[in-house]
Amino acid sequence: MMSDSLAPWRVALSRALHLNRSQPYSRYFQLATITPEGFPKNRTVVFRGYLDNTNQIKIVTDLRSEKVNQINYQPWGEICWYFTKTREQFRLSGRLTLITPNYPDSTLQKERQLAWQQLSDSARLQFTWPEPGQLRIEDNSAFSAASPAPEHPLEHFCLLLLDPEKVDHLELRGNPQNRCQYYLDESKNWIAQSINP
Amino acid sequence: MMSDSLAPWRVALSRALHLNRSQPYSRYFQLATITPEGFPKNRTVVFRGYLDNTNQIKIVTDLRSEKVNQINYQPWGEICWYFTKTREQFRLSGRLTLITPNYPDSTLQKERQLAWQQLSDSARLQFTWPEPGQLRIEDNSAFSAASPAPEHPLEHFCLLLLDPEKVDHLELRGNPQNRCQYYLDESKNWIAQSINP
Repeated sequence: MMSDSLAPWRVALSRALHLNRSQPYSRYFQLATITPEGFPKNRTVVFRGYLDNTNQIKIVTDLRSEKVNQINYQPWGEICWYFTKTREQFRLSGRLTLITPNYPDSTLQKERQLAWQQLSDSARLQFTWPEPGQLRIEDNSAFSAASPAPEHPLEHFCLLLLDPEKVDHLELRGNPQNRCQYYLDESKNWIAQSINP
Repeated sequence: MMSDSLAPWRVALSRALHLNRSQPYSRYFQLATITPEGFPKNRTVVFRGYLDNTNQIKIVTDLRSEKVNQINYQPWGEICWYFTKTREQFRLSGRLTLITPNYPDSTLQKERQLAWQQLSDSARLQFTWPEPGQLRIEDNSAFSAASPAPEHPLEHFCLLLLDPEKVDHLELRGNPQNRCQYYLDESKNWIAQSINP
């Protein structure tokens, strides 16, 4: 697929990641989804790189989190990613694919396993915690499980992919500001277009 | 209305704003809305304080921006506000009210005017720019209007209010993390509840 060649917006995004690399939170962005009732939801998640040989953005999530139900209902999301040092914003919208333990594609299961292996110990530990969003369990031993083995993911660990179909890049620096929109044409080639900020 | 007394989540939010005040981008957050077609949208906007004597969060926007149509269709949003220094996140969801030049309430019209007056010159200038999101006008004189007068807002300047009904506060610091949810009960009193992170 043409859309799996390196997309032109990745050059700008790689540059932003590089220039902002001194700040660990530059790898955090906000992911918007919608509920089955039609309300928007928004939360901070961590960039886990790209799926090999594609432009799909990797995120991880817990099968018990609220966004899972939202994504099953409407598998579409928009990332808003603001870089504080270079003062630029990327908005990436696209289809979401949730790689659960039962997802049938074996290549993507391997990717799920790899994503688990690449997590830090403390990130893996969070998947042993009691159900997120439920009344707080006050006994801290509920949060003190042993660190799970890095080889095989726990059952509620999911890889989440966002496959961008439209990207909007705004640079606040510059007089006036610069804004570029990227989208896929009918042949799945990326088109870049300057637009008014 | 009881919900207009100082909400308990404002204590935590004021503290975060204070502790992160050295970074101007601490007043930026991401606002999610949905399109009439049912897709999520997400963008960075600036916190402009609270509407006097209420818990409503002030934002400003251009009547020509895409979110206006989205808000007219579904007047609900979710803010995701991440503070990098203290490593905490607030998610605030609530009804959106767009104060356009034709909005019938004279008190809110005065608030719209006040919001315009409180903008910086460079922020006001952006409302003289050509239509956002359209093909870029390459002639920079289109972006070189004189700074508009601070007294009266330009026609497409809008005040946007978000009235929180549910707030989720997550502190990544702490072992384990702390998470508190605030919501309005049937009598419109705020309830705070610790939940699992």
